[in-house]
Amino acid sequence: MKNEMPDLQQSADTRNIPIDKVGVKDIHYPIVVMDRSQEKQHTVARINMYVDLPHHFKGTHMSRFVEILNQYRGEIDRNMGEILEQMKRRLEASSAHIEMEFPYFIEKEAPVSKAKGLMEYSCRLHGQLDENDQTDFVLGVSVPVTSLCPCSREISSRGAHNQRSEVRVDIRMESFIWIEDLIMWIEQCGSSPVYSLLKREDEKAVTELAYDNPMFVEDIVRAVTEKLSKIDEISWFRVECENFESIHNHSAYAMLER
Amino acid sequence: MKNEMPDLQQSADTRNIPIDKVGVKDIHYPIVVMDRSQEKQHTVARINMYVDLPHHFKGTHMSRFVEILNQYRGEIDRNMGEILEQMKRRLEASSAHIEMEFPYFIEKEAPVSKAKGLMEYSCRLHGQLDENDQTDFVLGVSVPVTSLCPCSREISSRGAHNQRSEVRVDIRMESFIWIEDLIMWIEQCGSSPVYSLLKREDEKAVTELAYDNPMFVEDIVRAVTEKLSKIDEISWFRVECENFESIHNHSAYAMLER
Amino acid sequence: MKNEMPDLQQSADTRNIPIDKVGVKDIHYPIVVMDRSQEKQHTVARINMYVDLPHHFKGTHMSRFVEILNQYRGEIDRNMGEILEQMKRRLEASSAHIEMEFPYFIEKEAPVSKAKGLMEYSCRLHGQLDENDQTDFVLGVSVPVTSLCPCSREISSRGAHNQRSEVRVDIRMESFIWIEDLIMWIEQCGSSPVYSLLKREDEKAVTELAYDNPMFVEDIVRAVTEKLSKIDEISWFRVECENFESIHNHSAYAMLER
Amino acid sequence: MKNEMPDLQQSADTRNIPIDKVGVKDIHYPIVVMDRSQEKQHTVARINMYVDLPHHFKGTHMSRFVEILNQYRGEIDRNMGEILEQMKRRLEASSAHIEMEFPYFIEKEAPVSKAKGLMEYSCRLHGQLDENDQTDFVLGVSVPVTSLCPCSREISSRGAHNQRSEVRVDIRMESFIWIEDLIMWIEQCGSSPVYSLLKREDEKAVTELAYDNPMFVEDIVRAVTEKLSKIDEISWFRVECENFESIHNHSAYAMLER
Repeated sequence: MKNEMPDLQQSADTRNIPIDKVGVKDIHYPIVVMDRSQEKQHTVARINMYVDLPHHFKGTHMSRFVEILNQYRGEIDRNMGEILEQMKRRLEASSAHIEMEFPYFIEKEAPVSKAKGLMEYSCRLHGQLDENDQTDFVLGVSVPVTSLCPCSREISSRGAHNQRSEVRVDIRMESFIWIEDLIMWIEQCGSSPVYSLLKREDEKAVTELAYDNPMFVEDIVRAVTEKLSKIDEISWFRVECENFESIHNHSAYAMLER
Repeated sequence: MKNEMPDLQQSADTRNIPIDKVGVKDIHYPIVVMDRSQEKQHTVARINMYVDLPHHFKGTHMSRFVEILNQYRGEIDRNMGEILEQMKRRLEASSAHIEMEFPYFIEKEAPVSKAKGLMEYSCRLHGQLDENDQTDFVLGVSVPVTSLCPCSREISSRGAHNQRSEVRVDIRMESFIWIEDLIMWIEQCGSSPVYSLLKREDEKAVTELAYDNPMFVEDIVRAVTEKLSKIDEISWFRVECENFESIHNHSAYAMLER
Repeated sequence: MKNEMPDLQQSADTRNIPIDKVGVKDIHYPIVVMDRSQEKQHTVARINMYVDLPHHFKGTHMSRFVEILNQYRGEIDRNMGEILEQMKRRLEASSAHIEMEFPYFIEKEAPVSKAKGLMEYSCRLHGQLDENDQTDFVLGVSVPVTSLCPCSREISSRGAHNQRSEVRVDIRMESFIWIEDLIMWIEQCGSSPVYSLLKREDEKAVTELAYDNPMFVEDIVRAVTEKLSKIDEISWFRVECENFESIHNHSAYAMLER
Repeated sequence: MKNEMPDLQQSADTRNIPIDKVGVKDIHYPIVVMDRSQEKQHTVARINMYVDLPHHFKGTHMSRFVEILNQYRGEIDRNMGEILEQMKRRLEASSAHIEMEFPYFIEKEAPVSKAKGLMEYSCRLHGQLDENDQTDFVLGVSVPVTSLCPCSREISSRGAHNQRSEVRVDIRMESFIWIEDLIMWIEQCGSSPVYSLLKREDEKAVTELAYDNPMFVEDIVRAVTEKLSKIDEISWFRVECENFESIHNHSAYAMLER
């Protein structure tokens, strides 16, 4: 029955227009990612999978993307190279792309009380396999920090405005880097890290730390740049910082790419 | 031609199940709202329109909602009562609901330099006409303010964490109240108002004002409650405050209804 | 050190304004929920926790919410009653609320090929413990289905417009109901269920099923109403359906509560 | 007073790290854009403004962005070149960027009844002025259309699944193009256009049009490519199409850049 059905996607297309990316987008999927302290971490990803489409095919076979994904039962991160190869082969394509985004949790101790809490970081992993079988992987993390305005502190006779900021970093690696390390490097670059659980003595400590360590949005991207430039395993990075200003209803923003 | 087409929506339904609300949702629409200083303000709304459906009808006529909306060329706020009546009549319903949400802009002077900037406030207007032809209107505004933590200020030897907060207030009115007044009352209830344009001398002023005026999320909803309780034109209100904590990646929240 | 710090939250408040809900909002947290076929399922929730605040307290202790949450290591669903009790006791409150929202995955077979794919359903669980120690739990699910327009089918000489719809159902239960059952009941109420993986023979089957089974948004909420009214374990429900119309850029919507 | 305040932003930075973009993000602002039929259209934009920051400055002056914006009273589109020049000059930068996104409304007639309704299209306008004073402008529109699956139609004995799709197109222009024209070209490339108001006779027409005109996501990006390739005024474009599949809970997607 199935074989008798026409396969429109395989039919010829005469418009002579190859397509850069075609595939499935916004698949929600439970995954298991590598975790330095617990070995494995269960989380939920939003996944996009694309291949290129040569000009002579009318369409790609969308269900095959989902079949390939299902084979790996959520262990995407460590199998990304293999998945990309399967995508190229089974979809008769010359390039393949996979993009995933997921929350990642790290247990973090409060600075004084040492009370433990879970912090969530939004992570991204993009993989690409091109027509020459070269792979390209980009790892991204979004790290919340506190920023305290140097100008406000300098000109005010008491206090200083501060706010939550989000630092978004994407990197290409020469060799393996733990998400935990990347996040830790970035957290040190704000006025203070952010925590999920703080007791009173911790709140005092982070308030004073931020006050002693004022940083513009520009200072944060420069501090991250200085830090990541020294990490040999990182061959390329882009850093963005967005301050959700406490005195405005808009954000301050800075970005640089190296 | 048209009249020969069957009208399935009008056909009988025998399941004996009346429906509370049926209609159109998420219509984006340019509107003109009343503005105290400029008379009229152009903005863009997201609109929902519903009626009830008696058990004996199979369906409502969705296109009539859009036709009714189009008659008023975006002057929805001052015609809401009439629109609700039309909805009941033309859709043969016993109750009608309209919900709209739109950004509203007010020119605001910085506290010291008097530099002018436009502040955006998200507003809501919900109207209902029931089976007894009683109307019910609820006006809502979301007002960003700065909040500075009293605990952090008290226990820290320098500084105090602060952040952007959003105060959401919904009211029922005995008589007309300008959006501008409602927003102004609410803005006075945070540690400091928020501005779109601040020069250095203003930044000093708002920093010090917030420091001198520390408020928990609980203090803000209580301050709004005290303020609104004294306004005779207001017969009911609900106030919510959410602090986008600068030391956490989650919010502090409080709500009360009177 | 800690004990010498002033506890501002415990200090007296003289404004005589009790607060309905105060607490923490939008905590992202990895959880483990009950799963009928696999016993346990790992997922990630967004959690809100609130208590009421008597008029004589200045503030609540926000960190205690997170401490209570951490005690249960993500096993929230089966411990919700106990968590609510702890919240009341440790925060000296007379009522407590917990709200969680999480994606839930079910393996589902395609209708003809029997190919297996994971479907995601957004779920909600709200619990409340009131001043009389009465609990109230509401379970909610969002279920995507296909809807095919009866009017379009009737009046057109070929085809019929159809689209993805979202059916949102919230229920109160007399006795335990599996999420899997609730979802299955709802999926039978659209023109066709939705799948993550369909081979060509399946695509033919769901296309024809939807065409043979046309339903307005009103029909879907009525079908769900008929179905759930027969389930003895359900004491209350609200059903909403939103059709993301393929011929409009807005939605058709219906809601009823029983 | 103001002049005595230290200007920290102007102070020297010795880390030798220039920043690609620094500025303000997510300013909501009422604007007036050019409209072919009505001359002017009032709408509301979300605006980002950035400049580069030479390595020797500690920070940029965020308030100046807002001051520049305010000078133009919302007439941003026709003054973008001048705004970019002002940004470079007043912020002592070598490059400047402005990004705005706004809903744009066009009155559109239903295909048979000629009933008029307002359609909303999300638009984007990005401008850049580089270190050599070269400008670069990109105009983007998001256009909803109906897509009807050719495979589903071919293999099914009745009906065919269809859904709302979003076509996103960004272009660089050699000479001026009206947003209205760009949208019209794109709308012709789906299985059927989408309308805000359709009477029964129109619903029949669009249902049959879509059925007679089945298109994969790949067909839509190719049809847009064929169309835009013939427009001399367009020197570059990127086209994306996302189908919010009615038989899945994820999207089909295609993209190409020329």
